[in-house]
Amino acid sequence: MNNFEYYNPVKIIFGKDQIQQLSKLIPSTSKVMIIYGGGSIKENGVYEQVKKSLNDHFMIEFGGIEPNPRYETSMKAVELARENQIDFLLAVGGGSVIDATKFIAAAIPFQRGEPWTILSEKKSVKSAISFGTVLTLPATGSEMNSGSVITKEDSKEKFAFSSPFTFPQFSILDPSVASTLPKRQVANGIVDAFSHVVEQYMTYKVNAPLQDRLAESILKTLIEEGPKAYKDPADYDAMANLMWCATMALNGLIRTGVPVDWATHGIGHELTALHEIDHARTLAIVLPGVWRVLKDEKKDKLVQYAERIWGINEGSDSEKIDQAINSTESFFESLGIKTKMKDYNVGSDTIDAIIERFENRGWTALGDRQLADLPTIRNILNLQLQ
Amino acid sequence: MNNFEYYNPVKIIFGKDQIQQLSKLIPSTSKVMIIYGGGSIKENGVYEQVKKSLNDHFMIEFGGIEPNPRYETSMKAVELARENQIDFLLAVGGGSVIDATKFIAAAIPFQRGEPWTILSEKKSVKSAISFGTVLTLPATGSEMNSGSVITKEDSKEKFAFSSPFTFPQFSILDPSVASTLPKRQVANGIVDAFSHVVEQYMTYKVNAPLQDRLAESILKTLIEEGPKAYKDPADYDAMANLMWCATMALNGLIRTGVPVDWATHGIGHELTALHEIDHARTLAIVLPGVWRVLKDEKKDKLVQYAERIWGINEGSDSEKIDQAINSTESFFESLGIKTKMKDYNVGSDTIDAIIERFENRGWTALGDRQLADLPTIRNILNLQLQ
Repeated sequence: MNNFEYYNPVKIIFGKDQIQQLSKLIPSTSKVMIIYGGGSIKENGVYEQVKKSLNDHFMIEFGGIEPNPRYETSMKAVELARENQIDFLLAVGGGSVIDATKFIAAAIPFQRGEPWTILSEKKSVKSAISFGTVLTLPATGSEMNSGSVITKEDSKEKFAFSSPFTFPQFSILDPSVASTLPKRQVANGIVDAFSHVVEQYMTYKVNAPLQDRLAESILKTLIEEGPKAYKDPADYDAMANLMWCATMALNGLIRTGVPVDWATHGIGHELTALHEIDHARTLAIVLPGVWRVLKDEKKDKLVQYAERIWGINEGSDSEKIDQAINSTESFFESLGIKTKMKDYNVGSDTIDAIIERFENRGWTALGDRQLADLPTIRNILNLQLQ
Repeated sequence: MNNFEYYNPVKIIFGKDQIQQLSKLIPSTSKVMIIYGGGSIKENGVYEQVKKSLNDHFMIEFGGIEPNPRYETSMKAVELARENQIDFLLAVGGGSVIDATKFIAAAIPFQRGEPWTILSEKKSVKSAISFGTVLTLPATGSEMNSGSVITKEDSKEKFAFSSPFTFPQFSILDPSVASTLPKRQVANGIVDAFSHVVEQYMTYKVNAPLQDRLAESILKTLIEEGPKAYKDPADYDAMANLMWCATMALNGLIRTGVPVDWATHGIGHELTALHEIDHARTLAIVLPGVWRVLKDEKKDKLVQYAERIWGINEGSDSEKIDQAINSTESFFESLGIKTKMKDYNVGSDTIDAIIERFENRGWTALGDRQLADLPTIRNILNLQLQ
C-alpha cells in the first residue's frame, strides 16, 4: 500500500424529506445566493422546498449554469455575489452546478489576478466562501469532494482545480428528487460513477486488497442497481443505492494508498470541449479503448476485474480480459449509451485535433504510469472510431 | 436504505515515516500535552520520533493510561492540563490512550458538575480542546471517530460517550510502529475490528447492497491479511492492511443507512468490567453466542455472511449458518483467542452477576430490534460457558 492522506469534512444528509434541514444548516444571519442550472428544479419541486426552508434567510438567486459549466457564466455569478456581499452559496443541482459553485466560492475572494488563472495556471486557492449543496442528480460525486471542472467558452478549454477550501460544508442527498430525471441523465450518472471508480482501480496492484474490494463493491452495486434506477427513476431504493454509489465513487476513499489513472477523463474532456458530447458518453467511448490498448500493462487488475466483477473464470487471461471489456461496453450500451465515435458523428479529424491540442499544451502523456502517450492516445481513439 | 447523516472530519496521514509531520500538524504556538500508556512507546522508538518532531513546541507529558482507561486516571490528566493551560492534546498509543484523550479533551473545559456525568448521565459535551493521535495499535478505530469508552475504578462501571467535538483533528497511522507488538495485541486488534464490522452488519436487510459489500470487504480482508500480520507483525503490507481495515471498521461509513446491533459489545463490556478480560476476547466469547441464539431473527444476513465471507454454498440455510458461526469461532481460535468463558475461568455465577447489573440499571434489552432481552442474554452466555 502506498502512503496517503485522506481528509473529507463534508457532512452528508441522506434520505427522504431532508431538504427541510437547510434552515438549520445555514446560519440565519447568512446572506445566501442560490445557484442552479436550466430550471428543472422549478419543475420537480426542489426549488419550492429550498425556498420554503430558507424563507427566513436573506436570499438571492443565480440560474443558468450550463452542463459543462462555463467560466464566463460563473464570473457573472461572482459579480452578483460581490455586489450583494453574499457570504453563503447554495448549489441546487447536479455536478455542473456544484462544480460552478466551487469555482464561484473560490473566485469571489480571489484577488491575485483573473480567477481564470486558478484553472489555467493552477494558482492556489487560499480562501473560499462557505457553501452547501442540494444534489438533484447522482453522477459526478462533486457533492462530496473539493474538485471542480470548468470550461472556457471562448477557447473551448476545460480545466480542473481543487483546494482544501472548496469542500461543501454539507450536501443533502434526497433520492426522491431524482425520480423525475430523464433516463438519459440517469444513464449518464451510472456511467460517470462507474468510470470514476475504474480510474482509481484499473492500474496495477500495490497490495491494497481492502481498497480493491471497496472499489469492486461500488462497481457491483452500480451494475446491479443502476439498471433498476434507469428503468424506473422513481424506484426509491434503486435510486438511493445509485446515489450513494456515485458519491462514494469520488469522495477520495477508494483512491487511498493506490495509484490512479484518469487518462480516460483527460481524453474524454477533449471530446466534450470540441463536440459538446455529454461527459459520461465521452468516457464510455474512451474507456474500452484505453483498456484494449493498455491490456498488457493493466493485465493483473483487468483479470481481477473480469473474475470478481463479471464472474469470468474460464479461458486464458487474455480471453478473460477481452470478455470483461466487451461486458463493460455491453453494460454501457444497455443503458442507451453508445461507445463508438461514429455514433456521435465524430470522425478521425477529431483525433488529429485532440493530439494537436495536447501538443500545443506541451502534454506528452496522461495517467497511470504515463502509459497514454500521444501515439497511444491516437491508437485508443482509432480503435473506438466505429 | 434508511435515512442517515455522515460526518467525519478526521485527517488521516497513513504510511511510513509520517510521525515527523507532527511539527506541521500542531500549531507551533500550542501548549501540548502528550498522553500515553504503559511506556511501550519508549521501547519501540515512537516516543523518540514524537519528541524529535515536536522539539520546538511547549510540551508536557502524562503517562500511565491503562487498558480499559480509568476515569480516575483521566481526571489526573485533566488536572495537570488545567494547571498548565494546555490547549492541544496528543494521544500516542492504541484505543485506550485515544479514548482517554477524548474524555480528557472534553473534561478540561467541562463546568457543569463532575465530568463523570458526561458518561453516567450522558450530559452533552459542548466543547473540547483540540487533539491529534499517533496510533500504535490497529484495533479499536478510535483514531477516526468521536467515541470513547471509560471505566470507573471504584464502581467497575464502563460507559461510552461521543460528541461532534471529540473527533481527532488528525491521526497518524504508521504501520511500521506496530512491528514490535506482542502477538496477543495483534490478535486482539483483528478480533476487535472484525466485531466492529459485524455489529453494523449482522442485523437485517434494508436494501443497502453497497453498505453490505463495504462491510464484507473489510471482513474478507481481515480474514486474509489478519493472520499474516499476526504471524509476523513486521510484515509491513499485512500490518498496513490490518491497520486500514481496523480504522475503516469504525469510522461511521459502514453503518450509513443500515441498522446496527452492539449487543455483543454491551454484554462483553461487563465481562471486562468484572474480570479484566481483554475487550476483544470478551467479544470473541459473546459474538458466536449472540448469533446462535438469534439465528432465526438474523437469518437473512447470516446466510449472506456464510455465502459471501466463507464461501459456504451447500446445505440448508440453517446448516450454512451453523458452519459460518463455527468458521468464525475457528478464525478467532486460530489467532489464539479462546471463545468460551471457562477458558478464562469464568463460571455461571458471572452470568447471574451480569443480569443483576443490567437489572440494577433498568436495562431490559440490548441491540438490534432489542432482541437481546435479559433471558436471551442469559441463554447467550450459557451457550458460551464451555
